[in-house]
Amino acid sequence: MTLKVSDIGEKELINYILSNCETITPDDTAITSVADTNLISTCDMLIESKHFPENMSYFQMGFKAVTVNVSDLAAMGASPLGFLLSIALPKDFEVENFKQIFDGVLEACEYYNIHLIGGDTNEAGEIIISGTALGLCSNPLMKNTSRKGDLIVLTGDVGLAALGFNLGNDDNIYTKKALEPLAKINEGLNIKCAGGTSATDITDGLASELYEMKRKDIGFMIYEDKFNVSEEYKSLADKLNLNYLDLLLHVGEDFELVFTIAGENLSKLDFDYKVIGEVTDSKKVEITLSDSSVVEVSSRGYDHYVS
Amino acid sequence: MTLKVSDIGEKELINYILSNCETITPDDTAITSVADTNLISTCDMLIESKHFPENMSYFQMGFKAVTVNVSDLAAMGASPLGFLLSIALPKDFEVENFKQIFDGVLEACEYYNIHLIGGDTNEAGEIIISGTALGLCSNPLMKNTSRKGDLIVLTGDVGLAALGFNLGNDDNIYTKKALEPLAKINEGLNIKCAGGTSATDITDGLASELYEMKRKDIGFMIYEDKFNVSEEYKSLADKLNLNYLDLLLHVGEDFELVFTIAGENLSKLDFDYKVIGEVTDSKKVEITLSDSSVVEVSSRGYDHYVS
Repeated sequence: MTLKVSDIGEKELINYILSNCETITPDDTAITSVADTNLISTCDMLIESKHFPENMSYFQMGFKAVTVNVSDLAAMGASPLGFLLSIALPKDFEVENFKQIFDGVLEACEYYNIHLIGGDTNEAGEIIISGTALGLCSNPLMKNTSRKGDLIVLTGDVGLAALGFNLGNDDNIYTKKALEPLAKINEGLNIKCAGGTSATDITDGLASELYEMKRKDIGFMIYEDKFNVSEEYKSLADKLNLNYLDLLLHVGEDFELVFTIAGENLSKLDFDYKVIGEVTDSKKVEITLSDSSVVEVSSRGYDHYVS
Repeated sequence: MTLKVSDIGEKELINYILSNCETITPDDTAITSVADTNLISTCDMLIESKHFPENMSYFQMGFKAVTVNVSDLAAMGASPLGFLLSIALPKDFEVENFKQIFDGVLEACEYYNIHLIGGDTNEAGEIIISGTALGLCSNPLMKNTSRKGDLIVLTGDVGLAALGFNLGNDDNIYTKKALEPLAKINEGLNIKCAGGTSATDITDGLASELYEMKRKDIGFMIYEDKFNVSEEYKSLADKLNLNYLDLLLHVGEDFELVFTIAGENLSKLDFDYKVIGEVTDSKKVEITLSDSSVVEVSSRGYDHYVS
């Protein structure tokens, strides 16, 4: 049998790349020493049929293409330096719609205070927006450097976008989060200054990211009750026949950061954070459910090839 | 009538982008001041159905994805710093073929002495390889800074790939150039050190690049005879019912550099260059044909949307 990429999945593909290329930093971004600082660089490609919900506007597509890239800078605690935009469009794509995508890109760049510095245009069968975000950071926040006893903290609620993807066109906070996510660039800088010990952005789901952050010698315990999931959220998920914990843990796309920090440094954070657990020595990723039972969290996350 | 991108073409699309974003350098790459040097960054996306000839191997696709990006660094006289790879593949793509693409990327990175530092994987209907090349350069070679009296010089022959695209699978220098082009990174560094006054890489055709290099106050005169087109080349083009001057001037994809330099600095170049003309004050791009007649060169180049 011939092995297809869908047989091995995205994580295996990435593992193959990492194991054959020791110059890649296995973190949210590349880190390259330049003069007396580090150049932080990251690229992310968005494809119309895979990444843009049907009800997303062209403006929102352009904005999101910047957000997904800047979010990786945020996870490192980096300051934005520049953004490169590579865009491919169908031949018969309307110029007016292109202008809306481009407006979204420009407005996002302004919002994140990152200059659009270059790019490339191409023809393709569908809209493809590939971005590269560049940043600077003398001391990047890595993924896997948490310490036992640290708190596990979120920059905001997770699971909103996951629910929003299923709600269609209604005007509500969930759909808004799915269509207009924002990268937490200022929070990332604040976390680094406050002495955060590790961080990553939540794109493939909180569970998947926790497994990315976990070293062999540590474990994570999170608590269902600390997510403060609203009755409205539970009831909406229920109506859609969706498990709300699944939405919280295994979808992502909120672009919140999950980070670890010593309890005594929490007061140095100047945004509304949410403590959801702590770093343990259990060597597992576990959740204490509302009924006080403890279960191991599955590492399942979003996979482009197998989902 | 609704305006489509194919109605306005790629140059107009780029003009729209440039006129709405003053933070983009209108040159081969972005230039961003970092510490006491400049970060040079550029991105280029290759799409299976548009950029890869049918007879191109997966390895050659991977190699070319690095080449097209490194070529822009070469045009600035920049030293390679790092390469980011964003790749999208169909779900049913064979893992073995992915490994061949990746081998091509790795071998190209080794050839150009640039580290693969990061990337992204995705699913798409066809192979899409988007690269970002990063480099450093204290004093970049711009496109439009030639001076009257400078010589116009090529790093090598142009038109080989253009012919090769039409020759199919034959084992010859033209097909080889079409399938395995090489970026002129060392030549770019040499040109800068030797006092070259301007440079760009030839991707959309020599004519189109000369118009990119031309300021309003100068002109370019090139000479058909100086291209030393072989009888074999003319005869192969003839058999294919192609105009050989068209192939030379209006196709590109050889990834040679065209640059300008004062005659007294030619001896500082340590590669086989080809002088093809000089910078004039005619305000036109002209060619002196073999029969001594002088004609204006059309600015026509390759266009993704209208070709």
